Amino acid sequence: MIDRLTEEIKKKNAPIVVGLDPTLKMIPDHIKKKAFGEYGRTLKGAAEAVWDFNRALVDSVYDLIPAVKPQIAMYEQFGPEGVMVFKKTVDYCKEKGLIVIGDIKRGDIGSTSEAYALGHLGKVDIDGELVPAFDEDFVTVNPYLGSDGVMPFIDVCRSENKGIFVLVKTSNKSSGEFQDQRLSDKDGRMLYETVGEMVDEWGRDCMGTDYSNVGAVVGATYPEVGKILREIMPKAYILVPGYGAQGGKGSDLKYFFNKDGLGAIINSSRGIIAAYKNEKYSQDYPETAFADAARAAVLDMKEDINVCI
Amino acid sequence: MIDRLTEEIKKKNAPIVVGLDPTLKMIPDHIKKKAFGEYGRTLKGAAEAVWDFNRALVDSVYDLIPAVKPQIAMYEQFGPEGVMVFKKTVDYCKEKGLIVIGDIKRGDIGSTSEAYALGHLGKVDIDGELVPAFDEDFVTVNPYLGSDGVMPFIDVCRSENKGIFVLVKTSNKSSGEFQDQRLSDKDGRMLYETVGEMVDEWGRDCMGTDYSNVGAVVGATYPEVGKILREIMPKAYILVPGYGAQGGKGSDLKYFFNKDGLGAIINSSRGIIAAYKNEKYSQDYPETAFADAARAAVLDMKEDINVCI
Repeated sequence: MIDRLTEEIKKKNAPIVVGLDPTLKMIPDHIKKKAFGEYGRTLKGAAEAVWDFNRALVDSVYDLIPAVKPQIAMYEQFGPEGVMVFKKTVDYCKEKGLIVIGDIKRGDIGSTSEAYALGHLGKVDIDGELVPAFDEDFVTVNPYLGSDGVMPFIDVCRSENKGIFVLVKTSNKSSGEFQDQRLSDKDGRMLYETVGEMVDEWGRDCMGTDYSNVGAVVGATYPEVGKILREIMPKAYILVPGYGAQGGKGSDLKYFFNKDGLGAIINSSRGIIAAYKNEKYSQDYPETAFADAARAAVLDMKEDINVCI
Repeated sequence: MIDRLTEEIKKKNAPIVVGLDPTLKMIPDHIKKKAFGEYGRTLKGAAEAVWDFNRALVDSVYDLIPAVKPQIAMYEQFGPEGVMVFKKTVDYCKEKGLIVIGDIKRGDIGSTSEAYALGHLGKVDIDGELVPAFDEDFVTVNPYLGSDGVMPFIDVCRSENKGIFVLVKTSNKSSGEFQDQRLSDKDGRMLYETVGEMVDEWGRDCMGTDYSNVGAVVGATYPEVGKILREIMPKAYILVPGYGAQGGKGSDLKYFFNKDGLGAIINSSRGIIAAYKNEKYSQDYPETAFADAARAAVLDMKEDINVCI
């Protein structure tokens, strides 16, 4: 799957992933009015509004980008109805030829981790019938529980040609509380470096042509960390959140790429899907043109990033 | 919510939580036959089998125990239909007077973590209408992303009188890869100790009468760690997985309790819900009596644990 991602990035000349992380506040009134009119201000109504919003966004940008990253929390908050729309979004994006990175940050142990891996990337065995459930192309994985939590995902990546991105250094302010702790038995290197070393090790048995199906998440807000981790994990694709709304700048992104101009994919969520609320776009694009504003924002992001590689 | 948990534990004289983590392999043939007959060997059929299994188990043991812990992975693997059965299970258990600990191990940042917190413990705001989605009483939380990931849950715990258990030291073999790293800037104490200190700190602002609504997960398989963490987090309830099937013994559990005989709740999943497959029970309880076997296993577990406190 990492080979397909690399190809699509080259083809579209866009190391960009659009985060489909809608909140109700981002969704234009006319969409909410229609959904709430039909289903009321209920979980189903909210989920329906998200679905209408997503479809219009995807229709508007799918030809420009290789991948989308729906954040499952924004769907799961609306209960099973929301999870249904997450699944519909995954399917719709795949129909449009997009690679889907499920931002699920799951991580558990043994048979539980296996259940997440099979349910999200593989097929579940129902009395001999192998059935895909969510069927994303990649998912994000939390490493806190160690190899026991990650290996079941890697097994499924191997058998189904899928991929994962392991959280190494996250983009948030407090990510250092645990991730930046210096480790006595690792010559004072930081926890994120050790996690990065494990990502490199896990990834060696799960290679595509040039890159591994085991990638990493490293926040754009920590470019100096990106530089260190880029060296520790030369074969890992880095999924980079935190660009734009969280403060990461285009010029900081060069550290996340390899010399081949590959090896990183930059996520933007709010910056794209709520572009019509940003003063840069709001004059040209009224609320009803939110999808066009998203397209304009993708084109601008592409330019901003491509000058840095 | 921690006060209610403490009361129920005392009332039922059982510091026990039953893990509702069904796999299809655990579910008796007559239940699967009925579900697959009706819905086929599909995600819906699998979810229906889980639902029938759960209901019978809960009916059989609810009067003996204070709480259940459904592991969402075992439902989520069957897609939105599975998640629907997770929600039905949560509701059914609450109707039976049980406290529900959603074993979701979520952890993200900012508005994403807030979405998980509101969706699982609180109410989501749908255009002014406050609607509960999953509405568990407690959930488990992964701390790898630091305070940014945990605080949104604590905010909801405060406003809704709910609780969380933060993963500190997990029961699996490889949990030490990261959790047992010694930290240079913390006098060589281990990462799990630092996480434990944070749990203690987070919990101080979220107190019930004697215990905090911020608890911790510490595996029964590491009793010596339980002893250390018990001291670091005197006010935290410890949710203890790994008893039984994973190798944790009753005699090891004393370290997880405080001198008041409280402060810990021991989980058993397979050991209870699949007791009819264990040779200890299989002679007396055929497959069709799986729910009675579960009841017998709860009674035995209660005895095993209560002699140790």
